[in-house]
Order: sequence, then structure tokens, then C-alpha cells
Amino acid sequence: MVSKKVFITKKFEFSASHRYWIDEWSEEKNNQVFGKCTSPHGHGHNYELHVTVSGAVDPATGMIINLSDLKKHVSLVIEEFDHKFLNVDTPYFKGEIPTTENIARVLFDLIDAELKGKGDFELSKIRLYEKSDLYVDVWEG
Amino acid sequence: MVSKKVFITKKFEFSASHRYWIDEWSEEKNNQVFGKCTSPHGHGHNYELHVTVSGAVDPATGMIINLSDLKKHVSLVIEEFDHKFLNVDTPYFKGEIPTTENIARVLFDLIDAELKGKGDFELSKIRLYEKSDLYVDVWEG
Amino acid sequence: MVSKKVFITKKFEFSASHRYWIDEWSEEKNNQVFGKCTSPHGHGHNYELHVTVSGAVDPATGMIINLSDLKKHVSLVIEEFDHKFLNVDTPYFKGEIPTTENIARVLFDLIDAELKGKGDFELSKIRLYEKSDLYVDVWEG
Amino acid sequence: MVSKKVFITKKFEFSASHRYWIDEWSEEKNNQVFGKCTSPHGHGHNYELHVTVSGAVDPATGMIINLSDLKKHVSLVIEEFDHKFLNVDTPYFKGEIPTTENIARVLFDLIDAELKGKGDFELSKIRLYEKSDLYVDVWEG
Amino acid sequence: MVSKKVFITKKFEFSASHRYWIDEWSEEKNNQVFGKCTSPHGHGHNYELHVTVSGAVDPATGMIINLSDLKKHVSLVIEEFDHKFLNVDTPYFKGEIPTTENIARVLFDLIDAELKGKGDFELSKIRLYEKSDLYVDVWEG
Amino acid sequence: MVSKKVFITKKFEFSASHRYWIDEWSEEKNNQVFGKCTSPHGHGHNYELHVTVSGAVDPATGMIINLSDLKKHVSLVIEEFDHKFLNVDTPYFKGEIPTTENIARVLFDLIDAELKGKGDFELSKIRLYEKSDLYVDVWEG
Repeated sequence: MVSKKVFITKKFEFSASHRYWIDEWSEEKNNQVFGKCTSPHGHGHNYELHVTVSGAVDPATGMIINLSDLKKHVSLVIEEFDHKFLNVDTPYFKGEIPTTENIARVLFDLIDAELKGKGDFELSKIRLYEKSDLYVDVWEG
Repeated sequence: MVSKKVFITKKFEFSASHRYWIDEWSEEKNNQVFGKCTSPHGHGHNYELHVTVSGAVDPATGMIINLSDLKKHVSLVIEEFDHKFLNVDTPYFKGEIPTTENIARVLFDLIDAELKGKGDFELSKIRLYEKSDLYVDVWEG
Repeated sequence: MVSKKVFITKKFEFSASHRYWIDEWSEEKNNQVFGKCTSPHGHGHNYELHVTVSGAVDPATGMIINLSDLKKHVSLVIEEFDHKFLNVDTPYFKGEIPTTENIARVLFDLIDAELKGKGDFELSKIRLYEKSDLYVDVWEG
Repeated sequence: MVSKKVFITKKFEFSASHRYWIDEWSEEKNNQVFGKCTSPHGHGHNYELHVTVSGAVDPATGMIINLSDLKKHVSLVIEEFDHKFLNVDTPYFKGEIPTTENIARVLFDLIDAELKGKGDFELSKIRLYEKSDLYVDVWEG
Repeated sequence: MVSKKVFITKKFEFSASHRYWIDEWSEEKNNQVFGKCTSPHGHGHNYELHVTVSGAVDPATGMIINLSDLKKHVSLVIEEFDHKFLNVDTPYFKGEIPTTENIARVLFDLIDAELKGKGDFELSKIRLYEKSDLYVDVWEG
Repeated sequence: MVSKKVFITKKFEFSASHRYWIDEWSEEKNNQVFGKCTSPHGHGHNYELHVTVSGAVDPATGMIINLSDLKKHVSLVIEEFDHKFLNVDTPYFKGEIPTTENIARVLFDLIDAELKGKGDFELSKIRLYEKSDLYVDVWEG
């Protein structure tokens, strides 16, 4: 038998709205770069978040992490994003555009911090879908 | 051979945000009925719209409606909804909550009007998904 | 504007196991009719249940039924099926095989009874997926 | 308990290619009506076929139709379409364009004929997906 | 042209039931850790298994592995799991809980052993879905 | 905060047909190795292509690559494949079978060349689905 790595992934969902706009740019330049995403009152998406955790499989329980614990920790993080206008209702995108790349980076850090010290496992990767045909992966490297 | 009915359905997508709130109600009652959907700056979804058209199959082309025509007509309607905050950016939800039921009813009427007189076919039904686990069907009855 | 019918559908999930076996039949006949489904300790599926409700759209709330109410009522019914061996752990399949047809018929009656008298809406249809390529529809007719 | 209608649906798949072209038309008119589908050597799709059967649920087996029978009958029909160039390799589209509408109509008739007299059930409907965002429904009416 | 790695993945399915329970623990502790999964007669899932194979692409056939061979080998392994109560009907979970992690580890070893020596390819990774929102990845590391 | 890698993936689609056949082989050997894929006039699929790009996230725009640019570049490549009979209508499979492995390798090289020098990003990986249960991954290694 070979030495193997094992990863468990759980999907989560949240619905949010956002706007792409840079104050320092002209309306023309904003429209050229961001297209319909400049709509002033924002627009929204159903985000799907895949959280991947790695670690040793506990010989007694057969688990890397108890899924009820994983749900509890990730839900704490997602609560700040769910049913929110990300630019306005969260503190994370004050000087940054809430693109899928930036939302994913913020979520990685928040979930990583939330899981730290909670057990013999670690956040390995997240994947964030903005739509079914667009997603961002973030991992440590 | 039996007499048969034939229907063609094309899916479309748009991303929008909305808010559930009734001014005449107290904040407490709004929260009780609408929960997280009361978030003041709105939140969003990827809406998926199925447009079903019925009619005779043209013996020459084998089509009920040319899909490039169907796309043109429905896109004209969706343009008003895509990347918009539905409560504010469209005229359809001034005195109405933009629930999935109401958005679907408005879309049915708009698409029905747009297709009228354009050929030997008619709008048979629409289905509107707010999320993959929630959808509304509207048809004439 | 035409008179329209509006239906809202919410998906639910449960995981259960079942066995196909008729005591009065020989093992040979059971195997011939039911194949691998005769496995004595059962096997399982992730069932997906679509519950469709019809009714008038409330002019104030824009809703046929408040989804939090629909979830509460249907969850009460599903609780008896979720994480259960349907033949043994529920009272509904003592003299009946828990095929997708029969599970769907039982669920229709239970949800219909649960929703009765709860508001100005009614159960219109259920769809039950045993797997992504097999489903049963039940409605009144 | 109400009187209920019960329908079972099984999905099938086949991969085929086709071409849209009318000899009597100019190349310009063919291109205008059929666009890229005029490509001379054809192009292809993964078709997904939903076959819906209605009938009484057998009190002993709990089934409308044994799925192994349904698979056997439908597979006989699909065999003529799977891994084929529909215009050339089948007899059904000699004077007709193999649009999704026409393929679905042909499949309805073939499956209906195949199921006739095989038991106490009947073909209720078929749905044919050309792609995940385009499908045709056919039923008797 | 750069040197590239090429991997082919085929999805397989099986339906099984399982139970989470540790005899040495009290009922209270079992319920606390495993929740509804302690249900005594088990419950079930439709498992989806992705098998990823790497290797050189044969210049003649354009294939890493002939898919009919891959299907034959993996089906031999899955046969032991399909339509079974994993705790009772297989020898692999006598002292272990059949969690998704453990089932995936067992499947990796069995498929790896089955593919060994059969050609110029090797098992690179497996992914096992218990449900659409929960999966485990296993690879050598 | 840890150093992180960020990847963005966009899905694209095209429909094409192909045939598996080696002239130097007997019909018997072709059938044995390629089965139904030897059908002389080809058969088709809806291909789904995932294009993954890595790079630094631009601090101003929050983007690795503007998606309208990514769409423009990849569409140029796909245009040669969409609605085509790959063996005949493209120059890439004259001495090679258009298996999923080979199509994916060709697409990786073409997209990699198209993206080169267009910005501070690079093609990281492609995934090509022939059907929903069969896909090939290609990346540099």
C-alpha cells in the first residue's frame, strides 16, 4: 500500500451583490474595463464555495474533520457575505474591487484563520464559483 | 401515427440583485416575513430562465421558431434585468416585491408581448430559477 | 394581459436505503424481477424531491407561500425518511416495495395532508429523483 | 386520499452528428437560416433523451414498468441513432432537416411503436436535449 | 511546444448504504459524533467515483488507456460495493467506519492494484462524491 | 497572511464530430479497438472546455486577466473546432486520431500560443469534457 494524501471538500453557498467601479477612473474607462458590472446599484450572483481540508484520517472516526464542525466554522465566515452588497455591507472591499479573485482571496484568509488551532487539519484550497462557468481557485504556494 | 404537440425550450441567464421590503410594515414584521432578504442594499442571484415556445414545425426548416430569432427577442427583454438592482433599476417592481413569482410573471408578459405577431408560434411557458433549488413556472390558464 | 397560472417549486433532499423483495416469491423470481435490488441488507440513494405548490400570488408579499413555511412543513414529512432503511424504519412499506413510484405516492399524500388548511395554496405536484437519470412525477388527476 | 397520476422517467444518451442544409436553397439562404449548422461534413452533439411512461402502479412490484424492460425497448430504438451521422446513416431525415424538433418527433413515434402491446403502460412524453440549454418536448395532444 | 502532462478521467457510479457506529462508545457519544448516521439499519447514497489515469498518449491510438479496458477494470472493483450495505456486505469496514474518506482510500488501493501491470499507465487520483456537495480526493504523495 | 496562488477558470463550449479510424489497420482491428467510434461519417459531441489562467491579481482591477480578453483569445481558437468534423475540417488530426487526449493537447498548444505576450498571465491548465462523464486534463510538467 502506498502513502496517500486525502482531502475532503464541502460545498457551501451564498447569495450576494457587488459592483465594479474605480472612483479615480472616468466613467468611460470604467465601462470599457468593467462593462455591465459598473451598474451603480450593483447586481448579484449565487456564489458556490468549495472548501478543501487536508489532514490525517482519524483511525477511530474515519474522518479528517467532523463535517458538523466544518459547517460551523465556514458558516461563521460566510454569514458576513450572505445576502449582502459586498462593496457596502462588508469591510473587505473598501479599496478593492470585489472580483471573484479578490472575494476568493479574502475568503481563503478568513477560513484559514477560523480553522487554525481547531484540530489536526488545515485548509488546503478553496474554489469559488461566481457562475457555473466561472470560478477561482486559491491555495497556499 | 398520433397527433403530437411539440415544444421547444431555450435557457437564458441573467444576474441581478433585489431586496424584499414593505415600507408600510415595521422592521420587525419585515424581518419576520422576509428574513435575510431585507438587507438594505440588496443581494443577488444568477437567474436562469427557460422560455418554452409551441407551434407547428415548419416542414421546410424543421423548426418551430428559428433559435436566432428567439434569442434576439428574449435578449431584448432580459437586457432590462441583467446586471441590475431590480427594485431600483427597472420600472416593474415599484409597488411590488421582486420575488421569483413576481419576476416570472413580469417576464412572461414581456416575452409574450415581444413574440406576438412575429410568426406562427406562441409563448407556452416560462420557468425562472432563482437558485438551483428554487424555481417558478408561469403559463396561461 | 392574460390570466396566468403560477407554480413555485422547492427542492429537498434525503438519503435513505431500501430493498426490493417479495416474501411470497422464490429467490429466483425475486432476482429475475428486481436484480441487484434484492441485496438482503439493502442499498441506498440520495433522493431529491421537488415539491410544487400552486395558488394565488399574495399582492402584498409577492408570494404563493412563504418558503420558510414550505420548508418547515416538508421537513416534518422528510424527517421520517432521511437516513433511514425505508423497509424497516418507516411504517409505509410493510406490504409494499419501496420503489420510486411507491415512495413518491406516499410522499405526495403525506405532504398534501401536511399542507392542507395551512393557507391559500395547495400541493400541485411532486417529482422524486432516485438518481439523476430516474425520476417519478405524481399529481392529482 | 386523492386519485393520482404517476409517471416514471428514465434518461438515455446518444452521441450523433447532423447537418442543416436544403438543396433547393442557395448557399446564401442556407447560411442565413442555418448559420454554422450548414458545415458540410456535419457537427455533433451529446443528446440526452428523457422517456416518460405512464400507467397503473402494479400492486405487487410497485412498478409502472420494469426499468430493465424500458431500457431494453428504448435501447433498440436509440441504437439506430447512436454514433451516427443522422442525415446519412439513418433513413429518417432524407427529406427533412434533423433539427431537435424533428429528431424528437421521430423518436416519439419509434418508441411509442416499440412499447405498444408490451404491457399495461404507454409512452406519455419524451424530452430531447441537444445541449444543456436547448430541449424539445413531444407528447400526444 | 512545451512538455505536457495528460490525464484522463472517467466517472463511475454505485449505490450503497452504510452506518456510522463505534461499539466501544456509548449511544450518547455515537449520536454526538455521528448524528443521524447512527441509524441502526443504515441509510444510503448514490456514490459518484472519478478515476484519473495518467501516462503517455499512444501515438497510434491517441489514447492513454482504452476506455473499454478502464471500464472493465474499475467495474470489477465497484461490483463489490454496488447495491451493498458496506458495513456488512464487504470485508473492508469491519474495524473501520465507512466514511467517505475511508471508502475512497479503500477504492484507491483496490483500483491501483487492479490496474498494475495492465499497461503503460497508472492510477493518478480518485475523487469520490457521497453527495453533490461532499467529496474526497485521494492520491499518492 | 500566507503567500497564495490564484487561478481563474472560464468554461467554453463547442460542438463537433469526429471519427476514430486507422487506415493501416484492418476493419476488424479498428472495430475491436475503437468500437462504435469507427462509424464512417463520424458522430458528435458537445465539448466543454475549461481554460485555467494563473498570474498576479492586478491591485487596481482585482483581475488576473480581463474576462472579455480571455473570451476573445479562446474564441479565436475554438472557432476552428466549433460545428466542424474534426478529422476533415481542421488541419490538426491528419495523422492522428481526434481522441479527447489529442484534441486537448492541440487546444492547450493553440491557446498557450494565443495568450503568450498578451499580458502578465499564463495558461495553467485546460480540461476538456467529451461528455459529462469523461474528461482530459492537460498542463505543463
